[in-house]
Amino acid sequence: MEQIKSFLLKNKSTLLDELIECIQIPSISTVRSSKKDMYRCADYIKAYLSQIGLENVQYLDGGGYPAIYADWIHAKNKPTVLIYGHYDVQPAESLDGWISDPFLPEIRDDYVYGRGATDNKGQLFMQLKAIETLFQIHECLPVNVKLIIEGEEEIGSLTMTEIIEKHKDRLSADLLVVSDTGSLQKDAPAICYGLRGIIGFELSVQGPNRDLHSGSIYGGVVQNPIYALVHLLNSMKNELGVISIPGFYDDVQLLTDLEKESLNAISLSEEKLKEDIGVKQFFGEEGYSFLERVWVRPTLEVNGIEGGYQGEGMKSIIPEKAKVKVTCRIVPNQKGEVLQSIIEKHITKNIPAGVKVEVEWNKCSNPFYIQPEHPYLLKALNSLQSVFDKPVQLIRGGGTIAAVEMLNQSLNMPAVLIGFGHSSSNVHSVNENMSVEKFEKAILALCNYYLSLGSDHVEEES
Amino acid sequence: MEQIKSFLLKNKSTLLDELIECIQIPSISTVRSSKKDMYRCADYIKAYLSQIGLENVQYLDGGGYPAIYADWIHAKNKPTVLIYGHYDVQPAESLDGWISDPFLPEIRDDYVYGRGATDNKGQLFMQLKAIETLFQIHECLPVNVKLIIEGEEEIGSLTMTEIIEKHKDRLSADLLVVSDTGSLQKDAPAICYGLRGIIGFELSVQGPNRDLHSGSIYGGVVQNPIYALVHLLNSMKNELGVISIPGFYDDVQLLTDLEKESLNAISLSEEKLKEDIGVKQFFGEEGYSFLERVWVRPTLEVNGIEGGYQGEGMKSIIPEKAKVKVTCRIVPNQKGEVLQSIIEKHITKNIPAGVKVEVEWNKCSNPFYIQPEHPYLLKALNSLQSVFDKPVQLIRGGGTIAAVEMLNQSLNMPAVLIGFGHSSSNVHSVNENMSVEKFEKAILALCNYYLSLGSDHVEEES
Repeated sequence: MEQIKSFLLKNKSTLLDELIECIQIPSISTVRSSKKDMYRCADYIKAYLSQIGLENVQYLDGGGYPAIYADWIHAKNKPTVLIYGHYDVQPAESLDGWISDPFLPEIRDDYVYGRGATDNKGQLFMQLKAIETLFQIHECLPVNVKLIIEGEEEIGSLTMTEIIEKHKDRLSADLLVVSDTGSLQKDAPAICYGLRGIIGFELSVQGPNRDLHSGSIYGGVVQNPIYALVHLLNSMKNELGVISIPGFYDDVQLLTDLEKESLNAISLSEEKLKEDIGVKQFFGEEGYSFLERVWVRPTLEVNGIEGGYQGEGMKSIIPEKAKVKVTCRIVPNQKGEVLQSIIEKHITKNIPAGVKVEVEWNKCSNPFYIQPEHPYLLKALNSLQSVFDKPVQLIRGGGTIAAVEMLNQSLNMPAVLIGFGHSSSNVHSVNENMSVEKFEKAILALCNYYLSLGSDHVEEES
Repeated sequence: MEQIKSFLLKNKSTLLDELIECIQIPSISTVRSSKKDMYRCADYIKAYLSQIGLENVQYLDGGGYPAIYADWIHAKNKPTVLIYGHYDVQPAESLDGWISDPFLPEIRDDYVYGRGATDNKGQLFMQLKAIETLFQIHECLPVNVKLIIEGEEEIGSLTMTEIIEKHKDRLSADLLVVSDTGSLQKDAPAICYGLRGIIGFELSVQGPNRDLHSGSIYGGVVQNPIYALVHLLNSMKNELGVISIPGFYDDVQLLTDLEKESLNAISLSEEKLKEDIGVKQFFGEEGYSFLERVWVRPTLEVNGIEGGYQGEGMKSIIPEKAKVKVTCRIVPNQKGEVLQSIIEKHITKNIPAGVKVEVEWNKCSNPFYIQPEHPYLLKALNSLQSVFDKPVQLIRGGGTIAAVEMLNQSLNMPAVLIGFGHSSSNVHSVNENMSVEKFEKAILALCNYYLSLGSDHVEEES
């Protein structure tokens, strides 16, 4: 470890060079006009992977933006690690309130500011720099390494399934390592052992074939599609915030005693969080703590609703239709497909009189879970702990990383999510940033982790 | 009557001339660019009123488009009739499916086609032509007559209250006669003895100060404003279509036996009505017939709703706010102001946790009612019946004519609503039309009515 520390110290002045060059390429996957930059960014990373000593560097194509693959698999009888990251970023406009240009990174007070500084270029380069460092010092790696760096994370990993299906053997590994999450403490990373999945649908309610006058001759005898939708939604979640669709909670995984304990040990300033979003009180299922509601319990939210007249003033109509967008965050042990059929059944049973109802499903991502006692995870915890001064928390996440669950399920491998972000990193927001100190420590901690994994012996496959 | 009949027969070829000229002026009050035409139309009618022998012809100004006033008050000891009508029309575009230009009236198969042919230029000219006919034959009128013809009916009679307040004495009369409604039968008019009023409000629900990610770190602990709105709306009307706001139905006037009888005698083809609007079943309060639901029972309808993301695809947010437009059709004996406070109280009591709720009231029109046994009304019924072959129905209306209630209440006079329209007149729709035969019969019937009213003796005021 001392050798690594002194290597990092010696190279301190150039450590961020590639990250900064990479941030300068506005690889925004959601914006069509950024197509050239997307490929420029992928090319940049591809070249860097070759340069640091990785092999078989190539694009894997699933029909969308390519994923970059690379490997180094000469550590005989050692575990194989698949590292996942993404090179696409969220859109960013200087005008939105950035102090410096989002695509001209600037270092202020030991923080790198720029779009992608944390999500995910910053966290990706922590991984790449760790590999580079190990190569530089040992001329080899302590474990077998495979990388998959996709370009569609910010648009929902649209073609990731195709890529995985086409390259199952190439991507197979003993564990997946991902740095694309965050921690609750600014100064230390966290390890995330569970993520919620997501399912979403659009519900349309059709009443009469046109907007009707709300007075004569239909005003009082026709079901109002907006009201029909209100009653249908009301049947799905009650006033206390509890989802009332029969069977919805059936498969929700209960917390183990260990999980409960580690969850209770985490303290959050609810007052500060309330202040941040300007609400006077939080709301949710009774009997569950703040973090249980966000991490352990599924949700059902209306993301958007529309129907009838929305202009200025009054327009006394019974509108012809109404529609709503709904997403559910689903939790470990719940299955998207099962819930879709449970919800569909509930809707069919509760169609209000006098209207037609249609359900259209959007994409579905299953939740992710790894037992917090998993040896690969505990090894990561120890490796990080010995580098960072603060204890590293074991947490869950309320959000979804589609690719994690896809890789985890399709390739049947445990995943270790090491998150170096924090809410003040302003991921997806203005002035996204990353601590230079954390960047350096992360490289050290990841080297430490891979060295520790390298001390494991794996039976060679016949 | 024979004298009138032969006068109308003699003048048959010129009877529609003024109506047709008037329809040619596109007096659309909702469209700003029609301002000149609005005044051109008012001038046209003003000139015509003078020409037929009415006196004191002038504009009454309330700050918007002027109302036209005229009178003839030389029938000593006879009742004074205030006739209301309007010269503004709904917008109309040839491209919408008009067979002939909406503002170049055409007579096809004995029907006049053009915007305003029924609403209200056609029905207004029935009244004016009746006055002209009586003048021509008798050189005087059998009753005292006052007219008020406004230009803002189609935009909610915005300045009618001001006009009435400023000219109370001038407008005072023994009864109000209005031809701006319709009948259920094509071949005969109907007399409408009750109209619903309307109250409307906008309800806004504010949650967090911005759209939140529905995953971490708020996804499960924040009240969703759309769902809060759903629960609030659900508390206002139940799944059976019954308004569940305490006290809402308290003042609803019950039907008398006579009313029940006349209502039950009216037959409607519900199948045809369902087909027209493309619904498989009607919906509404159990225990009430179709016409009771539309005429006698109040309603609460959501006219429009919006909140959150409404674009393509999924956007997994908890939106910051949601809003809804609501109108209630209110029925005789209910008071708009009372209901506003009842609704406001209910909302205040039911504000969901974790959100702010705001209510903004729009305009309010009270319902109108005259006892169907009222002598002025029965006289009208007899006068119409003797001219039209079919029995004239006593009906109510589900809609609202703001000015009727304003004049009725402010000037404390009974109102007789004689409706010559029919659903096939296509009022507010394409190819609006009026039967030429009905136009002629209407003039005859109205002359008959005014002659019959003229047989009444009224004590001269001291």
